[in-house]
Amino acid sequence: MRAPPTILINGEIGEHISISDRALQYGDGVFETIAVHHGRPLLWQQHIARLLDGCERLSIRPAPDPESLRCDADELCVDAQKAVLKVLVTRGESGRGYAISAQNRPNRIAMLLPWPTYPREYADTGVEVRICDTRISRNPALAGIKHLNRLEQVLARSEWQSEYAEGLMLDEAGNIIEGTMTNLFLCLQGTLLAPDLSQSGVTGIMRAAVLDRARKMSLPCQVTSITHEMLDGAEEVFLTNSIIGIWPVRRIESIQYNIGGTTRRLQKEIEGSHCFGQAS
Amino acid sequence: MRAPPTILINGEIGEHISISDRALQYGDGVFETIAVHHGRPLLWQQHIARLLDGCERLSIRPAPDPESLRCDADELCVDAQKAVLKVLVTRGESGRGYAISAQNRPNRIAMLLPWPTYPREYADTGVEVRICDTRISRNPALAGIKHLNRLEQVLARSEWQSEYAEGLMLDEAGNIIEGTMTNLFLCLQGTLLAPDLSQSGVTGIMRAAVLDRARKMSLPCQVTSITHEMLDGAEEVFLTNSIIGIWPVRRIESIQYNIGGTTRRLQKEIEGSHCFGQAS
Repeated sequence: MRAPPTILINGEIGEHISISDRALQYGDGVFETIAVHHGRPLLWQQHIARLLDGCERLSIRPAPDPESLRCDADELCVDAQKAVLKVLVTRGESGRGYAISAQNRPNRIAMLLPWPTYPREYADTGVEVRICDTRISRNPALAGIKHLNRLEQVLARSEWQSEYAEGLMLDEAGNIIEGTMTNLFLCLQGTLLAPDLSQSGVTGIMRAAVLDRARKMSLPCQVTSITHEMLDGAEEVFLTNSIIGIWPVRRIESIQYNIGGTTRRLQKEIEGSHCFGQAS
Repeated sequence: MRAPPTILINGEIGEHISISDRALQYGDGVFETIAVHHGRPLLWQQHIARLLDGCERLSIRPAPDPESLRCDADELCVDAQKAVLKVLVTRGESGRGYAISAQNRPNRIAMLLPWPTYPREYADTGVEVRICDTRISRNPALAGIKHLNRLEQVLARSEWQSEYAEGLMLDEAGNIIEGTMTNLFLCLQGTLLAPDLSQSGVTGIMRAAVLDRARKMSLPCQVTSITHEMLDGAEEVFLTNSIIGIWPVRRIESIQYNIGGTTRRLQKEIEGSHCFGQAS
């Protein structure tokens, strides 16, 4: 029996794309990184909703049909026990110049990738985190979107090798926005705080799932600007993304944290839920 | 006789690139847009110096050998009377994740493209310019580099069709930075002003050539922050890039300008020089 493909481009097996694709020329597109568990992409509806919202905000039209995205996922993931499904939508090919044309035909790319080998201790005993020198820029027109302009994250991630699990990025004004590949949460005086992402950052799917769970658990929650002083005063800190779930933070530079009850409760909730491939 | 190729990828004829290339995944690369005149790429040394400087600042290593870039250009441009040479350097292929690896092998792409069909009146009688709603973000780590993260320019350019020749982009603080594809100059009280690009924008090759000429002509020049009020007060305004040379501006939204002597003198200097394919 033939092994399932690992890459589909507009539903066809392939590995290459035209150099005229605007994703290559301008980073003109959006993407999703989705956990796959026992052949099933997790939080699928949420990922596809964000992908389509990104297409809408960037006027990438026609946006891909959710049914075709589902077919790609089914074909790639059928044999995958634990993997990462990455889906990209580019604006397609065009001639030179930034102008968008009604002739642009978006390209849909789906790739099945290995599950990353993060140490299990990251989730159990917490991670050590850097404050990056590279800042994340502010632009409400792009904030929240998981778009393909990721040079700031590439530069920030290049500031360390393996001595940290993640690095936090600040905006120009010094607000703490997010990690290079994760969203940030703090517990401060009993309230769960998540950084405001209206000017910068990516509105993570796991971030939304955690906020949703927290509200259902009647935890006081607030989305707000996060300053360095709030990091200093926080009782608990954790990071989220769709692949890792929740990583407690035990240190940010010189600030030490205990892994507290709120982090553990939310971690248990998420790890026991459909967000993490469990039945509930 | 076989026609010369129009695309070279690492010196080989080709049209496609791996979807794992980081230019497609993250906009992780740099580019140059070079005027070609009678088979010769203009301001070649300057373009290649900026390309290599961009590679250095983004740690794209090994940077391409200038000799191989020259060979690509010679092969593509041999029969080109008037064309655009676009050169991209990407960080190359990698697995998922922002981290840079010593295994990354940059890809070098050179494309010969048609000369754009701008109306000749743009250079003669000036252009009308929009102020874009889409802002350009501030980040000194990326400022000046002609990198592949160009979504802000794509969104700004989508704000109009053909009713303007160009749109100006402001940063978050309201400073006027540049056009979507051009640099800006003003004459204010007899001084030639160019926006400071230490926080945002692309340090244009034609911008540098114009500043150089202006200094040689003993025109007082200043690179500084440009406010909307300075646009209101300017005697002359013009736009530059390597393809267009100089376009006088006759209107920015409701502000009207005369095309003044400084603009005309610089235009004559540039259009008569090697920057524009002339012998001098």
